[in-house]
Amino acid sequence: MTDRKDAANSMWGGRFASGPDAIMEAINASIGFDRRLYAQDIRGSRAHAAMLAAQGIISDNDATAIGEGLLTVLSEIEAGNFPFSTALEDIHMNVEARLKDLIGEPAGRLHTGRSRNDQVATDFRLWVRDQCDAATEGLHALIRAALSQAEAGADWVMPGFTHLQTAQPVTWGHHMMAYVEMFGRDVSRFEDARRRMNESPLGAAALAGTGYPLDREATAKALGFDRPMANSLDAVSDRDFALEFLSASSICAVHLSRLAEELVIWSSAQFRFVSMSDKWSTGSSIMPQKRNPDAAELIRAKIGRILGATVALFTVMKGLPLAYSKDMQEDKEQVFDAADHLLLALAAMGGMLSDLTANRANMEAAASSGFSTATDLADWLVREAGLPFRDAHHVTGSLVAMAEAKGCDLDDLSLTEMQSVHAGINQSVYSVLGVHNSVASRQSYGGTAPDQVRAQIARWKEKLA
Amino acid sequence: MTDRKDAANSMWGGRFASGPDAIMEAINASIGFDRRLYAQDIRGSRAHAAMLAAQGIISDNDATAIGEGLLTVLSEIEAGNFPFSTALEDIHMNVEARLKDLIGEPAGRLHTGRSRNDQVATDFRLWVRDQCDAATEGLHALIRAALSQAEAGADWVMPGFTHLQTAQPVTWGHHMMAYVEMFGRDVSRFEDARRRMNESPLGAAALAGTGYPLDREATAKALGFDRPMANSLDAVSDRDFALEFLSASSICAVHLSRLAEELVIWSSAQFRFVSMSDKWSTGSSIMPQKRNPDAAELIRAKIGRILGATVALFTVMKGLPLAYSKDMQEDKEQVFDAADHLLLALAAMGGMLSDLTANRANMEAAASSGFSTATDLADWLVREAGLPFRDAHHVTGSLVAMAEAKGCDLDDLSLTEMQSVHAGINQSVYSVLGVHNSVASRQSYGGTAPDQVRAQIARWKEKLA
Amino acid sequence: MTDRKDAANSMWGGRFASGPDAIMEAINASIGFDRRLYAQDIRGSRAHAAMLAAQGIISDNDATAIGEGLLTVLSEIEAGNFPFSTALEDIHMNVEARLKDLIGEPAGRLHTGRSRNDQVATDFRLWVRDQCDAATEGLHALIRAALSQAEAGADWVMPGFTHLQTAQPVTWGHHMMAYVEMFGRDVSRFEDARRRMNESPLGAAALAGTGYPLDREATAKALGFDRPMANSLDAVSDRDFALEFLSASSICAVHLSRLAEELVIWSSAQFRFVSMSDKWSTGSSIMPQKRNPDAAELIRAKIGRILGATVALFTVMKGLPLAYSKDMQEDKEQVFDAADHLLLALAAMGGMLSDLTANRANMEAAASSGFSTATDLADWLVREAGLPFRDAHHVTGSLVAMAEAKGCDLDDLSLTEMQSVHAGINQSVYSVLGVHNSVASRQSYGGTAPDQVRAQIARWKEKLA
Amino acid sequence: MTDRKDAANSMWGGRFASGPDAIMEAINASIGFDRRLYAQDIRGSRAHAAMLAAQGIISDNDATAIGEGLLTVLSEIEAGNFPFSTALEDIHMNVEARLKDLIGEPAGRLHTGRSRNDQVATDFRLWVRDQCDAATEGLHALIRAALSQAEAGADWVMPGFTHLQTAQPVTWGHHMMAYVEMFGRDVSRFEDARRRMNESPLGAAALAGTGYPLDREATAKALGFDRPMANSLDAVSDRDFALEFLSASSICAVHLSRLAEELVIWSSAQFRFVSMSDKWSTGSSIMPQKRNPDAAELIRAKIGRILGATVALFTVMKGLPLAYSKDMQEDKEQVFDAADHLLLALAAMGGMLSDLTANRANMEAAASSGFSTATDLADWLVREAGLPFRDAHHVTGSLVAMAEAKGCDLDDLSLTEMQSVHAGINQSVYSVLGVHNSVASRQSYGGTAPDQVRAQIARWKEKLA
Repeated sequence: MTDRKDAANSMWGGRFASGPDAIMEAINASIGFDRRLYAQDIRGSRAHAAMLAAQGIISDNDATAIGEGLLTVLSEIEAGNFPFSTALEDIHMNVEARLKDLIGEPAGRLHTGRSRNDQVATDFRLWVRDQCDAATEGLHALIRAALSQAEAGADWVMPGFTHLQTAQPVTWGHHMMAYVEMFGRDVSRFEDARRRMNESPLGAAALAGTGYPLDREATAKALGFDRPMANSLDAVSDRDFALEFLSASSICAVHLSRLAEELVIWSSAQFRFVSMSDKWSTGSSIMPQKRNPDAAELIRAKIGRILGATVALFTVMKGLPLAYSKDMQEDKEQVFDAADHLLLALAAMGGMLSDLTANRANMEAAASSGFSTATDLADWLVREAGLPFRDAHHVTGSLVAMAEAKGCDLDDLSLTEMQSVHAGINQSVYSVLGVHNSVASRQSYGGTAPDQVRAQIARWKEKLA
Repeated sequence: MTDRKDAANSMWGGRFASGPDAIMEAINASIGFDRRLYAQDIRGSRAHAAMLAAQGIISDNDATAIGEGLLTVLSEIEAGNFPFSTALEDIHMNVEARLKDLIGEPAGRLHTGRSRNDQVATDFRLWVRDQCDAATEGLHALIRAALSQAEAGADWVMPGFTHLQTAQPVTWGHHMMAYVEMFGRDVSRFEDARRRMNESPLGAAALAGTGYPLDREATAKALGFDRPMANSLDAVSDRDFALEFLSASSICAVHLSRLAEELVIWSSAQFRFVSMSDKWSTGSSIMPQKRNPDAAELIRAKIGRILGATVALFTVMKGLPLAYSKDMQEDKEQVFDAADHLLLALAAMGGMLSDLTANRANMEAAASSGFSTATDLADWLVREAGLPFRDAHHVTGSLVAMAEAKGCDLDDLSLTEMQSVHAGINQSVYSVLGVHNSVASRQSYGGTAPDQVRAQIARWKEKLA
Repeated sequence: MTDRKDAANSMWGGRFASGPDAIMEAINASIGFDRRLYAQDIRGSRAHAAMLAAQGIISDNDATAIGEGLLTVLSEIEAGNFPFSTALEDIHMNVEARLKDLIGEPAGRLHTGRSRNDQVATDFRLWVRDQCDAATEGLHALIRAALSQAEAGADWVMPGFTHLQTAQPVTWGHHMMAYVEMFGRDVSRFEDARRRMNESPLGAAALAGTGYPLDREATAKALGFDRPMANSLDAVSDRDFALEFLSASSICAVHLSRLAEELVIWSSAQFRFVSMSDKWSTGSSIMPQKRNPDAAELIRAKIGRILGATVALFTVMKGLPLAYSKDMQEDKEQVFDAADHLLLALAAMGGMLSDLTANRANMEAAASSGFSTATDLADWLVREAGLPFRDAHHVTGSLVAMAEAKGCDLDDLSLTEMQSVHAGINQSVYSVLGVHNSVASRQSYGGTAPDQVRAQIARWKEKLA
Repeated sequence: MTDRKDAANSMWGGRFASGPDAIMEAINASIGFDRRLYAQDIRGSRAHAAMLAAQGIISDNDATAIGEGLLTVLSEIEAGNFPFSTALEDIHMNVEARLKDLIGEPAGRLHTGRSRNDQVATDFRLWVRDQCDAATEGLHALIRAALSQAEAGADWVMPGFTHLQTAQPVTWGHHMMAYVEMFGRDVSRFEDARRRMNESPLGAAALAGTGYPLDREATAKALGFDRPMANSLDAVSDRDFALEFLSASSICAVHLSRLAEELVIWSSAQFRFVSMSDKWSTGSSIMPQKRNPDAAELIRAKIGRILGATVALFTVMKGLPLAYSKDMQEDKEQVFDAADHLLLALAAMGGMLSDLTANRANMEAAASSGFSTATDLADWLVREAGLPFRDAHHVTGSLVAMAEAKGCDLDDLSLTEMQSVHAGINQSVYSVLGVHNSVASRQSYGGTAPDQVRAQIARWKEKLA
């Protein structure tokens, strides 16, 4: 690609003298990128040929020659010695031309009852379907990494933030499990998208269907599709399956960007909540303490290109009349790029998380400062001293102000001092002021209490098993 | 909204003298838009109060007072005489403050074991869930309109286009059914999104869960959720349900834009395939023949704002640390605007399509010109004269060239003329040259043959019944 | 707007029974938002009427009646008692209809040689031009606030970060001046956009120009335009001026988001580089130390909606044939929303920055840790000890490792210790190891040395004067 | 690129076993794409080395060795035999490492007073600046092609459309000139962007400037920059110049998409306003009359990827703290892709337009139908018969209705018939009813009258000369 682009750049950069033929070829040919569909293209053609023979549309001998010839093409491409030709425009023509070289006249029968329009729609669906599976696999690996972190630190206390300000203590395990939930929904989105796109366009022909007695159920089944698509115009015209894949990828990339941002902040000198291994950071020859979180930053950035690809394809598809228009050739590069970088980001995040050291002591120290258990105190006053909620808040505010004035934390106040603000306070109040007691008390379903966290970890491990 | 914006504009337009308080209030308050969540907010609060009483956290009397007071607030808002206050910032505080006016001290107990963070997450999910249902309903109405058109014109012939060039004849019914398939997938996307978002955040409290013995299953059930969310940080931090709704809306809006574009082109003087009624077009006082397809153009444009809203929320959510950050207040206006305009576009398209006259004669005339059955001729040569596909194409090309030179269409050539190109051609060739024969022959599953189209119409009618 | 939307929502939400007329009116009318153009509309009409009279196309009496009648309409609207009518569709018809009420028959002559197409293009340009001026004004106020901070802290040392890791010390003033440069380029972008859009569409009529002997130079001049647009089709068809305004706004909003992010991070308990006043943060009744940086978070989020608006209008305009299409009615709401929120964000950032306390001691302490002057040491070795750069790096690395092992900073190492690594080190090395010396040494143009920073402040103050 | 992507895909696709090192390298290395900056990198390094010698920071001998060594590297790269190494991460390290191979120790002095941060900022600015120039050049070629079309058909009549409905007759030349105006503004946007970005980051060093006595004016001048950037943090942190280039490219691509859409519609069988040559369309072996407007469709689609790239970089830059973060490595691929495809689209549109046949007769026939001169009739009634505008409209409406009922056009009505509707009509009315008279009458500045069109063509030819 780079080569083609460099060439394009030097040719077209306002230097129009290069002539229309070269420009037309440059803007028209897709073989530079659609070669990535070779495996899907050959698989689809083999299914089509077998069906044509089964229906008596071509002879068994021809079908056999086609099927074996296509396997030869496949092995040539995978061996890296297939002579791709830009003059042949796209992967379909490249494969078919080579097939003709290999088996001669029967190659011409392969295209019976088929068109490049349904062929490319089939190839591309198969490819995107594979990416749904790959994303699911990548997400599962990442979920497992997060589960491991959660399990190790189910009761490690850290500050829970709102507005990046300490709000209430939570546990490291609880925080990790929040992402497990997000990534779990991402999996289900890719699964839904896969299920919805899993219909076969093959046999829609150019746009209107065909008069040949095709068995579209058979090719659908051979390619792992649930059924043939029910309208031939729709089959060659729509790319909503690609838009849905891109949308699910963008949502997943937003989740990744949030975790990445946290890792960048947490690895700053001011936070030091986590330490990244050398493998996932870059150093500096003269500042050996430096661990630049490059991988986290790059993951954070990936939402940019994935969202960009999403916008690109939405914009391309806007307002296109049925059926096939050449604009739709722009669909593939966007999906290729988004899928590549999503999978890479998933792998990098999974690896980085597996390898990450959470600094338990630093996190707990941070959680313990900043009156993070003030809410617990207010709740105690409601529960134990029978105060209405608003009064409890008022008393708590006075106690925090007292502690702040003394430069101490809430549990450093003596009982006498506390009782000077509200007489009903007794010794048991101290049980809710420590951060460990605080998190232990959050026993509501899905809360941060270590028991609750461990229950969710167990549920997820079972689910993944 | 307009009023608020006008005010904002005159205040902030570089005229900074207006002072920090007013600017802070303007950027901070959400009551200008989140008031739309009033019904969801009250519904959620009623469920929460009932649960608190059932769990013995508040008294039954207080719960009754709260529940009835909230109904009063609801009726005040719906009657249009609720005094919304910007100083009270958001819908939650407006409702709670009014409740306190109405029932006094027990109002303060409503917020026990709850926070605005889980409250707004609950309200917003309920609202978005309703929009999924409304989109489904709107799509069903539109599908029915398309089915009616398809049924009326299952065998009306029109040109099937690729690149906006005549390719092969199809039927009006077949073309309509392509959109039925697209809109059908849109329905399934909204259904999947609804199912995935249908979990209750209520009880996640600020971010960590709570020590009160809440019954989150009970409130989830009361609000029609399938279950409580399993992680309290996730519950208050994520907005992927909104991103998914926006993504599904964008895909649906792309489908609408494509049909709208076709309607605009088809109603041009050059095409005249369709005529819009006065209801769905605007005229001109001095050009009475003019029917400007304004509604179709506006529908075509809606993908702009819906995609824009999607990009907006993706950008807002990028890189936000957990849990709640104020950035997330920007989630609602985008979803409100996208939902409003999607539903409006669906209703307009449904209405326009119901009311549309397809000009059968014009479409058939267009389909019959331009050698649109050349492919049928080639297929006949393969099938009946035993030619290999590539030879058949060559013969067809010669015949088209002959017809073009004579200024006639293919079926205007005499048998003798045809046989001068290929001796194997016989009288039966004429049976495939007419556009009606052509479409009738496309009997592959999902093809344009009227029988196939009618079978799909029947399948859809059954599905919707 | 909210009201209209609520109504729309309850009407169209799949409940199609409400009938085509109401749906068509809802999708078609623009008076709900284009009323914001009233001042521009009236100004344009007054200029047009005066020109018509000057050219003898209408009588002076009629022109006077029109001009005065329009002033009456203006005062009615500004007084808030103008009866806007949805049936009259847009601001142009609302104003003209009211004018007819007020002055009768001459009102009908106003539209001579004009069309709603050039009228709305003129109104909208005038409005967007005003927003360019307002953005410039808002940016100037913000630049002044940043200059004040820079002046106060031209020599306050803080860590300069890369990857949010301490890299080298810089000064607070230098950091503030980086944003002054960015906002300065933003100003120049709005100025360029303003200059480019400052051409008058008025007189382009519907699309083809007109046969009336208009004086387009005169109306252009009266409205402050530099000249009339040179092609009538272009004048009514293009909206690139709005796209350019949105693009410039998006770039500015990215700059704001970066500063906002820094303010959020800097105000965390872990950093404490800055303290926000109560005016620009929200507190918590029970955690009095909390200063949630709500305003900074909301400013950070604004890029979302502004970029969304930009994408929306790009998508709308994609592929529209000339001349006017109704799709273009969707241009205004996007620009209104983006302009409102950009101006609000500028005002809020300006206010917040004016009011911000930079915690000099905390910043300096952070800058002094983490071997932030290691680069200075390496440079000293090159300069004073004559080492090649790579060797100097190696020596520095050894010294940092030594300090790290001892748990001290670089300038805590004794000269003997240093000389054990490289014999050429002498006492003068300590002059570069302190953070103040470090920043003072960065005397390259645009560097962080306080002298350099003060020179840039002086340049900017002169520029703004 | 494709190769790298393919590799990445097979490695990371959820198959995490490939190990962290390979994943980290894949996500971290940029040499796969930033090698395109080689010429800029070498140019910048040569300027830096010469300045270091002039300032006495390195010796003249070293500077000479560096300068000549870099020329050798340049020629190796351009000859295609430079061994790019992924282990060396980026273009800067690749070039420097090779320089060391070639000249040994002095290579290590090149990086004095410089960092990769200011180096890459300089390289990228130089590259983007070149693209501004290339876009300007491409636009000029396209403008010339449009001017040629305009000149040939300055008086060829075609329908002017609104809503794709015939509105008033215009000329082909006038329509072409509308695009000349748009592309002319595009040129000025690229010129403004170029001017604004034309400041040198070189010498900003890592982020803080440097203590070496650099002469930043000298390197700025050597590289064709107007001046050095005034703040070192800003110099290495901002990418607004890239965002501005992308925004200008998106606006230009919207303009291209509109002309492309028109060409697609105009080349349909129903319009036949234009015919594309074989060079710019693709045919069909069996439908020889077919001219698929592939190039126009691909140009129409390019706004998708260019807008996508724009959104991508905006999203990446959102909320990044100063100074350099690794996220910013994602800036280049987006700009490369957008620039390549913009230049390609400009070249293709220029070529296609040069080669296009406008079918004068078809356009004029279309313009003459549909009562396109009804407005002229109404204007005649105002001007010649002294009717108020609204009355004139009413009379015209009656006459059109009469003609429509008779199945004829307006100028087919007899004078008697006309006078039956309004007695003041006389023979001279026929002078405004023909489309040629209509366009000739639109003499307002910028109107469609051939004289006006020719005057604008002349102005543009002078401007370009």
